Amino acid sequence: MPTDSRSPVTVLGLGAMGRALAGAFLDAGFRTTVWNRTASKADALVARGAIRAATAAEAVTASPLTVICVIDYAAAETIVAPVADALKGRTLVNLTADTPERARAMAAWAADHGIGYLDGAIMVPTEVIGTASAVVLYSGPEELLAEHRPVLEALGGTPVHLGADPGRAAAHDVALLDLFWTSMAGVVHAFALASAENIAAKDLAPLAKGIGALLPPIIEEFAEKIDAGSHPGDDSTIRSAAAGMDHIVEASRARGLDASVLSAARAIAQRAIDAGYGEDGFSRLVETVRERRA
Amino acid sequence: MPTDSRSPVTVLGLGAMGRALAGAFLDAGFRTTVWNRTASKADALVARGAIRAATAAEAVTASPLTVICVIDYAAAETIVAPVADALKGRTLVNLTADTPERARAMAAWAADHGIGYLDGAIMVPTEVIGTASAVVLYSGPEELLAEHRPVLEALGGTPVHLGADPGRAAAHDVALLDLFWTSMAGVVHAFALASAENIAAKDLAPLAKGIGALLPPIIEEFAEKIDAGSHPGDDSTIRSAAAGMDHIVEASRARGLDASVLSAARAIAQRAIDAGYGEDGFSRLVETVRERRA
Repeated sequence: MPTDSRSPVTVLGLGAMGRALAGAFLDAGFRTTVWNRTASKADALVARGAIRAATAAEAVTASPLTVICVIDYAAAETIVAPVADALKGRTLVNLTADTPERARAMAAWAADHGIGYLDGAIMVPTEVIGTASAVVLYSGPEELLAEHRPVLEALGGTPVHLGADPGRAAAHDVALLDLFWTSMAGVVHAFALASAENIAAKDLAPLAKGIGALLPPIIEEFAEKIDAGSHPGDDSTIRSAAAGMDHIVEASRARGLDASVLSAARAIAQRAIDAGYGEDGFSRLVETVRERRA
Repeated sequence: MPTDSRSPVTVLGLGAMGRALAGAFLDAGFRTTVWNRTASKADALVARGAIRAATAAEAVTASPLTVICVIDYAAAETIVAPVADALKGRTLVNLTADTPERARAMAAWAADHGIGYLDGAIMVPTEVIGTASAVVLYSGPEELLAEHRPVLEALGGTPVHLGADPGRAAAHDVALLDLFWTSMAGVVHAFALASAENIAAKDLAPLAKGIGALLPPIIEEFAEKIDAGSHPGDDSTIRSAAAGMDHIVEASRARGLDASVLSAARAIAQRAIDAGYGEDGFSRLVETVRERRA
């Protein structure tokens, strides 16, 4: 196994996130080997000092530590399965986002092939990688994270270890991305609805940012209620939320906009109301979402 | 018209928000008359110095300025229509949330009855009312807002005038509440998905707050792209977002959770992909939402 005082690292997959990861390793002064199916994606990194590997096998052989970040685990498997022998005795850190089930399956595959395996989840956009604000979650053997921490710290922030279960990072990832993508659907829909009333996006943006700023304290309050299993409707009720959602769905439809996302949320609220929880707080919907079998 | 150096104000409707409004007026030292269909909702306010009116007519006659905040405009109309004569020559500020169409209709009704009318929208939760962080939007005659600004400032923050069109506040309101309620649906679903993996809400909350903190810069970036009508997929694409959403929908269904909200967002992304925009940025979905006739 090649070692190097500058802790070489390989990055497989050079989409926007893979390029950001490789760039952060380079910025931290680590010799970085890169590979991507379409080789030209490496050009800018090579100009910054990265070493271009001709094949995935050559790439993983160049370093004791390989980081992969591609679109999903099916894509990751296509890349790493053929180079399992080359990875033997080395460490693979999979920062691809996917389900906890697939993370556990890939950890089992890695164990079968004598490959050290950490599963990780990147919780920030590409431009935050390498900064103090970066958040990367890891699960798998803690000693493996400790061994590679000096290199992985180049990605920014403090690497967070969530436990030995390799699915743990992905479990957090899907929940957090659930919040992220649902909110993002809200962002684009809000801009669409505003534009239908000739409100420029730049005029809505300062107010929309204010709405975003309401979320953190609500998240904290909901967490307490959810862990306590108690959802008093003191400040606002599911019924009043449903009334608000009705206005938005109605205004959207009147303007010919797709209202499917909020209509689905409205239907969940209705199920809670029908079950007699209309005067409970909105956090009660956590239980309504759980009760659904569909 | 009764006037008073301490600018008396009447509050109709004493749900959680109406009580917060009346409480803020009281805290600012204004003589405040209150009325609610269920009179007992006024008890705590009366204990703080509010004057309980026996009827809505008595309430609106007590002050030159009446603020109403109820569940929707149908409820507001039920209260104010029978007291139109008593409101004549006075000002009605409607802080009830509803659609721009209904705001415009109520402004027309008020004009027909010689009632000064401002339509407003409250963009913060009850507990923020009366603080510097409060945001209340107004539309309608600017001079009417100027006249009542000293009283309305008691609600906190700086009253924002959005223009003479009485539907303008509601237009902003529906767009901003669209973002709010869609995000809230994401919050409850994220907690539900985490709990299905035995992640306590208190453990997810700090990370979820971090996701919430990602939104403001994205909102700013999207606003520029939307106003420019240009949606480059440099940092992330609709296709990669769709892959991420697939993992969440799959993980949710595997745990028996309702996945309808994010599935609807995923379907919008698919329409954009099918239309050839898969490599564009997520902000492009504003246009996809608009194209939908359903």
